[in-house]
Amino acid sequence: MYDYVVVGAGIVGLATAYHIKRMDPSSTVLVIDKEDSVGAGDTAKSAAAFRAAFTNRTNLRLAKGAISFYLKVQSEGFNLAALKVGYLFVVDGRTKSTIKEGVKVAASEGVEVEEVSQDRLEKSLGMRVSLSGLEEAEMLGVSDVEGGYLFREAGVLDVEKLVDYYYLKLKSMGVEFALGVRVKEFVVWPRSPLGIEGEPFPWEDLRVKGVRLVDGREVEARKKVVSALGAWSPGLLNPVGLDSFSRPKKRQLFVIKAEGQLGSLLRASGFNDLGVMPFTILPKGVYVRPNPLENTFWVGMSDELGRPFALEENPQPEERFYTYGILPVLGTYLPQFQLRYPDAAWAGHYDMSFDGLPIVYEPYESDLVIAAGTSGSGVMKGDSIGRVAAALAIGKEVVELGNGAEFEVRQLGLEGRSVERELLVI
Amino acid sequence: MYDYVVVGAGIVGLATAYHIKRMDPSSTVLVIDKEDSVGAGDTAKSAAAFRAAFTNRTNLRLAKGAISFYLKVQSEGFNLAALKVGYLFVVDGRTKSTIKEGVKVAASEGVEVEEVSQDRLEKSLGMRVSLSGLEEAEMLGVSDVEGGYLFREAGVLDVEKLVDYYYLKLKSMGVEFALGVRVKEFVVWPRSPLGIEGEPFPWEDLRVKGVRLVDGREVEARKKVVSALGAWSPGLLNPVGLDSFSRPKKRQLFVIKAEGQLGSLLRASGFNDLGVMPFTILPKGVYVRPNPLENTFWVGMSDELGRPFALEENPQPEERFYTYGILPVLGTYLPQFQLRYPDAAWAGHYDMSFDGLPIVYEPYESDLVIAAGTSGSGVMKGDSIGRVAAALAIGKEVVELGNGAEFEVRQLGLEGRSVERELLVI
Repeated sequence: MYDYVVVGAGIVGLATAYHIKRMDPSSTVLVIDKEDSVGAGDTAKSAAAFRAAFTNRTNLRLAKGAISFYLKVQSEGFNLAALKVGYLFVVDGRTKSTIKEGVKVAASEGVEVEEVSQDRLEKSLGMRVSLSGLEEAEMLGVSDVEGGYLFREAGVLDVEKLVDYYYLKLKSMGVEFALGVRVKEFVVWPRSPLGIEGEPFPWEDLRVKGVRLVDGREVEARKKVVSALGAWSPGLLNPVGLDSFSRPKKRQLFVIKAEGQLGSLLRASGFNDLGVMPFTILPKGVYVRPNPLENTFWVGMSDELGRPFALEENPQPEERFYTYGILPVLGTYLPQFQLRYPDAAWAGHYDMSFDGLPIVYEPYESDLVIAAGTSGSGVMKGDSIGRVAAALAIGKEVVELGNGAEFEVRQLGLEGRSVERELLVI
Repeated sequence: MYDYVVVGAGIVGLATAYHIKRMDPSSTVLVIDKEDSVGAGDTAKSAAAFRAAFTNRTNLRLAKGAISFYLKVQSEGFNLAALKVGYLFVVDGRTKSTIKEGVKVAASEGVEVEEVSQDRLEKSLGMRVSLSGLEEAEMLGVSDVEGGYLFREAGVLDVEKLVDYYYLKLKSMGVEFALGVRVKEFVVWPRSPLGIEGEPFPWEDLRVKGVRLVDGREVEARKKVVSALGAWSPGLLNPVGLDSFSRPKKRQLFVIKAEGQLGSLLRASGFNDLGVMPFTILPKGVYVRPNPLENTFWVGMSDELGRPFALEENPQPEERFYTYGILPVLGTYLPQFQLRYPDAAWAGHYDMSFDGLPIVYEPYESDLVIAAGTSGSGVMKGDSIGRVAAALAIGKEVVELGNGAEFEVRQLGLEGRSVERELLVI
């Protein structure tokens, strides 16, 4: 029996446990995960980047708070390998007005954005900007690059180190872990059991009292259970009539060595103090993440219509997705990538919410807090999502984010959400 | 090849097809359903009732529009067996403030609500209102009935007749039907195919061009495909990376003959011109629907936490759900039901959206309009949902509902939704 039982030791579960314990230091907290180590699920398979670059103000505030926290952690001596290389959105005639609108919203929230000219993209990155008449461009249906927008409060980090930070903190605070342990189901039980055969009855006041493990043991929570299951949320929630209203989608990342011309690209100057190419998003959703510490690029593409919502126990990257999906786009804009194929690759899941905002709510006063729907930006918002989930578990309506900003918990609920469209989708 | 292909011939699919054809008379429309007749899925298994009684203004407006349309249809000579018996919410100390708040919102939207005294409930319905000290009440954890709220613009109808109305209209308008036909999948295809091996590619401009049937045939839509699949939505949408963000939950209805004392209850006077007991919602979510034309009651209960989100091809009513779930509540408030057991029963699904509002949207400009999430009030809002889906399919931003009120299509989208909490949940 613990006060709080957190199911899922990804970035969201870890941050939630950390902030629960921080806000309620005398409580007992258990974190359960099916993997043998923390952050080993989709957290480990993320693009490990951060950006204060969203047009939905709620998303932006979550990201700003978490980034501020991560940078503070690093400045206090715990190296997260966080590098502020910036995020560069490359636009053409089709995407310019949308991104520009996004830039305007972001700027109104105090986010620093710099316009990057066609010319500078060409000179600094060797980008092909004049595409008219080019056979590949015609096939892709893209037109000339018109420029870019550089968000400075953005970059990359080492997610393994971030996960370690929380883990070490949690251990030192006395939070317990049950790793390599599979949860079979959430246990729904009356708040005041009658001790009658056949319980629970639908007219009883029911709550989620804990979890049943696959080995049959039960773990109870005196106060709250937290479901921080990411892509696995529906699988455990649906059997008790709950849902995260988010869906898993495969995310693939391909590693390309920064050799030859690509070495120069990786060390492109003029975008940040580090002399590193920024995290760059091309039209059609292909993105290039610099990984200067290992002299590689990580390349990905967010595909939408046609990519199934599906959970795979062991998702695999698809070579043909790189070759026929990503490379035609990548090689058109950055010819240095032509004929370059991955040296490594992996796949995980996005946990896509219905509107691109994370979901944190407690359905039916069930004592179960659901935190899910990170939608591809869970690492960069993780600390903030954890604070919101912790606040909800503890019964607070407002929480302070990592940058000191106050945040209303209900803004991530199903009823208090912002209805602003997110324009900066990657 | 049709202009519009509507998948699903439940109330939502039928109403959508009807309003598409009405708004775009020269278009060709095909309606496909796996059942051999229209309205044979969960529509046939609904509680077949209607109420202008919601606290979320969007829900209320949808219901008012559809009810107005149904009553007009009936007044013009097509009998829907619509009987305005009213909806009676019975409240106790625990539920009074919530329902009262709901009544206030409803009243501000021009809905007529009448307070019903404890005394009148006792005299007209034989309801037990003083429960203190009663063993059953103690077990249920309920306190004295404090009164009720009667919504007059509400009642019951024959959903089979409603479905017939649309079907006959659609046939007369030249809409085609493919019944007993199973759709295997939605077909995602480039808007401008290149004719290259390996299509579709993720960088192409993709749309849902039609459906593939289980027998392998393809049906194409020149303009839009409409997914009106209710509880079956995720099953067909997820494989192409789309979702209704709604979940199926079993709904059970039990038929009790109105014999003896129950006959008097059915013919309770003073609530409407018909001398019929109103559709009555008791604390704990048990409801009683009068069915005066067959001299029966339909009894149900909306159970939440613990009832799985799950789709069953052939859901069955559970005797023990009646005996141990419904009857203890029902018999406590209305002792006439004590020791009365069902003569018939059936089960279908709710299609629960994340916030109790229907969902109508076209993701990614995919040419696929998704209409789902009727959340237990699909019949009573069906005509309005159909109008909104038709308007979206045709490209209109505002649509006129059945009562002449204008409705913004985006209000049922994922981004333009109202965030008002629905208080009158049944």
